[in-house]
Amino acid sequence: MSGLDPKDWTALRALSHRMLDDVFDRAEHMGEGPVWQPMPQEARDAFRHDLPQEGEAAELLYSRFLGQIRPYSNGNTHPGFMGWVQGAGTPIGILAELLAASLNDNCGGRDHAAIEVERQVIRWAAEMVGMPVDSSGCLVTGSSLANFIGIITASRAADPGLRAGGVGQSKLIGYAAETAHGCVSRAFDLAGLGSDALRLIPVDELYRMDSAALAARIRQDRQAGYAPFIIVGTAGSVDCGAVDPLDELAAIARAEKCWFHVDGAFGAFARLSPEHAIMLDGIEQADSLALDFHKWGQVPYDAGCVLVRDRALHAQAFAQSLSYLTRADRGLAGNAPWPCDFGPDLSRGFRALKVWMTIAHYGARRLGEMVAECCAVARYLAERVEADARYLLMAPVALNIVCFTLADRDDAAIDELVKDLHESGVAAPSTTRIEGRMVIRAAIVNHRTTRKTIDAMLSKIERLACI
Amino acid sequence: MSGLDPKDWTALRALSHRMLDDVFDRAEHMGEGPVWQPMPQEARDAFRHDLPQEGEAAELLYSRFLGQIRPYSNGNTHPGFMGWVQGAGTPIGILAELLAASLNDNCGGRDHAAIEVERQVIRWAAEMVGMPVDSSGCLVTGSSLANFIGIITASRAADPGLRAGGVGQSKLIGYAAETAHGCVSRAFDLAGLGSDALRLIPVDELYRMDSAALAARIRQDRQAGYAPFIIVGTAGSVDCGAVDPLDELAAIARAEKCWFHVDGAFGAFARLSPEHAIMLDGIEQADSLALDFHKWGQVPYDAGCVLVRDRALHAQAFAQSLSYLTRADRGLAGNAPWPCDFGPDLSRGFRALKVWMTIAHYGARRLGEMVAECCAVARYLAERVEADARYLLMAPVALNIVCFTLADRDDAAIDELVKDLHESGVAAPSTTRIEGRMVIRAAIVNHRTTRKTIDAMLSKIERLACI
Ligand SMILES: Cc1ncc(COP(=O)(O)O)c(C=O)c1O
Ligand SMILES: Cc1ncc(COP(=O)(O)O)c(C=O)c1O
Repeated sequence: MSGLDPKDWTALRALSHRMLDDVFDRAEHMGEGPVWQPMPQEARDAFRHDLPQEGEAAELLYSRFLGQIRPYSNGNTHPGFMGWVQGAGTPIGILAELLAASLNDNCGGRDHAAIEVERQVIRWAAEMVGMPVDSSGCLVTGSSLANFIGIITASRAADPGLRAGGVGQSKLIGYAAETAHGCVSRAFDLAGLGSDALRLIPVDELYRMDSAALAARIRQDRQAGYAPFIIVGTAGSVDCGAVDPLDELAAIARAEKCWFHVDGAFGAFARLSPEHAIMLDGIEQADSLALDFHKWGQVPYDAGCVLVRDRALHAQAFAQSLSYLTRADRGLAGNAPWPCDFGPDLSRGFRALKVWMTIAHYGARRLGEMVAECCAVARYLAERVEADARYLLMAPVALNIVCFTLADRDDAAIDELVKDLHESGVAAPSTTRIEGRMVIRAAIVNHRTTRKTIDAMLSKIERLACI
Repeated sequence: MSGLDPKDWTALRALSHRMLDDVFDRAEHMGEGPVWQPMPQEARDAFRHDLPQEGEAAELLYSRFLGQIRPYSNGNTHPGFMGWVQGAGTPIGILAELLAASLNDNCGGRDHAAIEVERQVIRWAAEMVGMPVDSSGCLVTGSSLANFIGIITASRAADPGLRAGGVGQSKLIGYAAETAHGCVSRAFDLAGLGSDALRLIPVDELYRMDSAALAARIRQDRQAGYAPFIIVGTAGSVDCGAVDPLDELAAIARAEKCWFHVDGAFGAFARLSPEHAIMLDGIEQADSLALDFHKWGQVPYDAGCVLVRDRALHAQAFAQSLSYLTRADRGLAGNAPWPCDFGPDLSRGFRALKVWMTIAHYGARRLGEMVAECCAVARYLAERVEADARYLLMAPVALNIVCFTLADRDDAAIDELVKDLHESGVAAPSTTRIEGRMVIRAAIVNHRTTRKTIDAMLSKIERLACI
């Protein structure tokens, strides 16, 4: 027997129940330990070994997990985590990953339930933002890939000949706010258009794309012989959560016969909160859209999603005809089109299960309340900062991101302060630059973060900074 | 409380232990049910609902999983699955996914254990194929992305200015065998070079790239003013498992100052079997390499990997400088370079844990034996086919893929036969075309497939075809 299954399952089954209890113990007591602690050199060195010729017992590997991995986690499951834009996960999401791994479905295509579940969650995503329920889409690692897919689809809609012929002489040009996420510019780079082919448009005092400047720039580019093909609006900017005037961008895109893509990586979820949904008006007009279930959707990493209004244009950009992937009218090779017709991945895991279980378990209403509560916690932080002369609020708080700093500290001091804060284990915001100045950035994307967590962070900051 | 954790954990904990027992029951009895069965319309319809406003209990969702999802799985965990090129997973891989989901680490970057574990498995992958232990790399969904990353890296090595300026006037040209996987051509399409910029080189009678034809084509292209920049060798072709003459391709790449990329999606694992390793000689000279842990590595989906010999050139193709991703010398924002400097993903799950646990648990020697056993099972099938006048072996069996057909049946009959075979639940091979003829393709990538499974498939074929 060279198969890899154990001869006797008893020991592994027992170990697995122990693992599961440990998983639940950690989840129930989330927030009691530090949000993060540095990994000691000995633990790092434990992962600098040669390829092992002989295997080690599962029990031993699990004790290494407990001793050398689990304590030095990224920390985004902890209420004190407010860095970057990261979801915290949920217990149902953990269980969904267990179930998905047990089936081990390859979701590139074929006729099986996982494909139906993925279609269901794509439809739910479309309903969430108000796009047509028959929009096409697929799950991907994250919005970096989803934005790339949107841009590829738009360029092939402009000229299907690019697939074989390359982008060579096309002079295709796209537009995004200067505050757009770096993955949009990277997508232009990877697509061979070059990041210079993405025009970065200035923003207004609310950090929203200036639509008059956009219209002017498009005119200027046309006069110079370029071919404007896409406008990328941002619903929730990475730095401070600003939402571009999506309605205006959609109108300009229509008038200019450009594709309208929206990067709603986290912000799209604000559509689930009745009080915030209106800020995103225009998102439903997107020709394509990127969003992440792993951010505000609290689905375990990774789970991004792209939606495309026109199914045929989406397939036109990605579908291939390959003899070893022939589609059948029945049997396992049925059920075309396949997810691999809608994105660059062929083999793909069953991401849809954790998305389905999360949305079906909590429901859109409760997820919307969670989003609203994150925004309320962010507003609370902003209010505390504004009410206190020792702090400066550095950008308006549209949704859930608060950029602030200490009134009398320079960039180097803020940098040191945030590192001290991380090492204290109390809270983990990140940093960014606003108008050239290094600031503390708290992104409240974590359903476990509360006003108490904010209070604890500010107290710790005050102690560390001796203010 | 708007957080998504349960107020009382007891019920969910109890349910989770039930799930785990069901997962183990299924795993212990793997192979007793059908490899695949069609999903009834009612089960499909259960996933065509509107976005639910209210949530459903976890128990209810789990019963839907048991009733409407699990029975209609893709089947690649089952010994009878021999379709396409799919790994079967292992129990330790399932548990690793549970543990990874519980930590929910975002592995785009930062200073935490998951990043160290990823570096460890990248090093192990390099050792496996004989590339330098300090090669850079990252885990991705699959070889489709890994090949794309290799091609992007190679093009930016040829001209770093492409990132900003686009591929416009570059005249870059690449080469692969006509039997190369479709994702290589798709990578040229996505990169904006155009799939026509990939020259497909004829193969010899063993379906290996004809290196004389390659050298001639490069000369011809240079004369025509093109800029050859990459040669893509295949170690294990998708159709019949052929291995290009990697040593010869490496020498041509050196002489022509081209990048040498190897697509070793599944074949790279043959390097672990002493008896097969020699076939892959030359793979260790790769400038970059794609391989999949989810295929012959039996790691749960998805888990691809790219390796790049020159770390600096790898980073040059992907690294960005973004203020909200500032790197620090300590604290959570430490530990540069980050995985996001080596590929298109920013947010990424903790794929490395399941890879680490699989390799550490089984060890390289046992994984090599499993690979050798898959090849032996394939050889057994080939021998049975060759010894029987009712069958035709349609391609030489270099590793683990057997293409065969029935001597007296046309394409349509083979197509129907494979669909019948799927619906019988006994075995699930796929189809492809060899020299224009539709054939049955059995890819033995599954550690659970044995000679008995082969016998059962052939008996069933004989009954279904009335031969
Ligand atoms: C607005 C925005 N767009 C895109 C991204 C990239 O998404 P991902 O990390 O899922 O690739 C982010 C990540 O923070 C983001 O905030
Ligand atoms: C030789 C080869 N290359 C690339 C791929 C694509 O890999 P993935 O499905 O992991 O994207 C495959 C898939 O079967 C393959 O066999």
